[in-house]
Amino acid sequence: MNYFSSNFKLGILGGGQLGKMLLNDTRKFDIYTCVLDGSNEAPCKIASNEFHLGDLMDFDAVYNFGKQVDVLTIEIENVNVDALEALEKDGKKVYPSSKTLRTIQNKATQKLFYVDHNLPTAPFSRFAYLSEIEDAINNGGLQFPFVWKAAQFGYDGNGVKVVRQISDLENLPKGECIAETLVPFKNELAVIVARNPSGETKTFPVVEMEFHPEANQVEYVICPARISDDVANKAREIALKTSKAFNHVGLLAVEMFQTQNDDILINEVAPRPHNSGHQTIEASYTSQFEQHLRAILDLPLGRTDSKVGGVMVNLVGAEGFSGNVVYENIASIMNLYGVTPHIYGKKQTRPFRKMGHVTIVNEDLNEARRVAEEVKKTIRVISE
Amino acid sequence: MNYFSSNFKLGILGGGQLGKMLLNDTRKFDIYTCVLDGSNEAPCKIASNEFHLGDLMDFDAVYNFGKQVDVLTIEIENVNVDALEALEKDGKKVYPSSKTLRTIQNKATQKLFYVDHNLPTAPFSRFAYLSEIEDAINNGGLQFPFVWKAAQFGYDGNGVKVVRQISDLENLPKGECIAETLVPFKNELAVIVARNPSGETKTFPVVEMEFHPEANQVEYVICPARISDDVANKAREIALKTSKAFNHVGLLAVEMFQTQNDDILINEVAPRPHNSGHQTIEASYTSQFEQHLRAILDLPLGRTDSKVGGVMVNLVGAEGFSGNVVYENIASIMNLYGVTPHIYGKKQTRPFRKMGHVTIVNEDLNEARRVAEEVKKTIRVISE
Repeated sequence: MNYFSSNFKLGILGGGQLGKMLLNDTRKFDIYTCVLDGSNEAPCKIASNEFHLGDLMDFDAVYNFGKQVDVLTIEIENVNVDALEALEKDGKKVYPSSKTLRTIQNKATQKLFYVDHNLPTAPFSRFAYLSEIEDAINNGGLQFPFVWKAAQFGYDGNGVKVVRQISDLENLPKGECIAETLVPFKNELAVIVARNPSGETKTFPVVEMEFHPEANQVEYVICPARISDDVANKAREIALKTSKAFNHVGLLAVEMFQTQNDDILINEVAPRPHNSGHQTIEASYTSQFEQHLRAILDLPLGRTDSKVGGVMVNLVGAEGFSGNVVYENIASIMNLYGVTPHIYGKKQTRPFRKMGHVTIVNEDLNEARRVAEEVKKTIRVISE
Repeated sequence: MNYFSSNFKLGILGGGQLGKMLLNDTRKFDIYTCVLDGSNEAPCKIASNEFHLGDLMDFDAVYNFGKQVDVLTIEIENVNVDALEALEKDGKKVYPSSKTLRTIQNKATQKLFYVDHNLPTAPFSRFAYLSEIEDAINNGGLQFPFVWKAAQFGYDGNGVKVVRQISDLENLPKGECIAETLVPFKNELAVIVARNPSGETKTFPVVEMEFHPEANQVEYVICPARISDDVANKAREIALKTSKAFNHVGLLAVEMFQTQNDDILINEVAPRPHNSGHQTIEASYTSQFEQHLRAILDLPLGRTDSKVGGVMVNLVGAEGFSGNVVYENIASIMNLYGVTPHIYGKKQTRPFRKMGHVTIVNEDLNEARRVAEEVKKTIRVISE
């Protein structure tokens, strides 16, 4: 199949910021793209060859869209997986596969998958309803503290909460969930694995994620992680083992905890380009987005090593501001050394909404980290 | 003026490959763009917010387009300059200015500008008609060999020819032209200068251009040029002096000859992103396209130094092929180390037409140059 011809069509489910950045590389390779998204204001509305409006959770919308393309991929997990399965039965190439997505979409199923494949993860219990957690606490089957996670549709820090007392359960969604042992950890790490249908596999360097305490969102991603080679190699091996277990195609971002005694536990995975890989655009020989394309199109994978050190800062809506977005002091941060802002093009800001990110690259990683702090202090995502 | 809001509109005259690459960065910053081009198949048709169909040489088309935007720039010199001048009188920001463009559009005027500003350039004579060259030869006023250059509308190697005998003049355009002394040179060099309205100025490293003997098109661009620091500094100084003389805003690409005795002579300039800067996308801290945006929007300029060595290979249509383009062996070159193809999205190929370029980056510039040779031998731009 000649991907570099207008006879070929790549379908992307989701038109958000990940899709938008992916489109830079489809445009670079002049690959014809069709995007399906539920919002007419989706960042992918421009730069895609065809933009289709439709509900990603609706069987018909996804199935009929998928029938029109040659290869189908996603930029968000919350899509109708039954439609993907039907498309696979029709012989469509769907990466990630419906099987992988089905396992990952439900956090309980995802955790069980790790257990079944002897992949290290924190101990947990599964509950059909939130009320069952309360029962377990009352009859002594569950002790505080623990981490509550909604089984489905959690994103950007939603759907995860540390529970230290019964009152912390108030106002949580009532549905299926898990209670995970709260693991004290030194670092949160991530490794992005790329794999193409021919089986070629590559891993990007291990990155370190610094989280915002309240929002439970990544604040800084640091590449490479400032950890020992032993820990880094262990993390890369576990990421590879996880990728192999899923037998996935495309990118698999594996988020992990480095425990106090340097064990590695898998937190969760995402079968697509990921926030922990944005710095690859400027810092790596191959960006995660180009790599995802190379992988799903069964092209040779690119180099995953770094040209320079990279730090990524998420730009999220400031607390207390909602409405038409304004990027305060963006010109000032562009005056700092090695700084590139990425603005996602969402019109409306709200507290902690991901509106963009800033990459800081430098030969000296610590200097990049210092500048990142300055960026964080300087720019503010507010409303008019 | 807040560029990062949908109230701001950037206008781009020309929708070709330079515009297409510029749009990657307007998308990165979420800057609203309007593109004017004469072809409905222009690469900028997607990824711009508004695509306007119109003749770039037509006063009304350019003027009416320009009235709708806040800042106007170009990706090709052949536009209606009277319209730009009228827009400037109306108070529009036009970068490059009509004055700069008027001087550059006509190669005779451009050469006279260098003479007037004591900028080094090869000796030349100006002729209103090709026939006057023949007269000059006949009455001994002009000796072979010399370089004939059309005063206007030369591009991609057209409009330039080495004349060694009278018959070489056959089939040349009859209009205004210059005859330039054929300078034996060691290297063709280029320096891209960036300047913003506030007067901040930066230069990218000196690059070396290897030309295709027949097509007179750049075949390889090598960054940094493999020349002594003295020669590099001299080239950078002359580029800066040229930029200052034009008092331009945006990018100015200055092409130069390094003579046998290491003098630097200006060949020609382009007031926009340029083929000699494509490797900056992968090799530099700031790509020339992002830098052009930073400059015309009066934002702080980015770092111009390189992360790694870079070599750029132009992908031009192979001789003997015209029609729907096919990129033969593109997957094979993507298997080489540090290789990124850029496909411009032109549907039709013809001999020597610029269809894309390939960047090869490596810590070791000589290794990148070796891989570039392999790329050149492997990929072929042919027709179905």
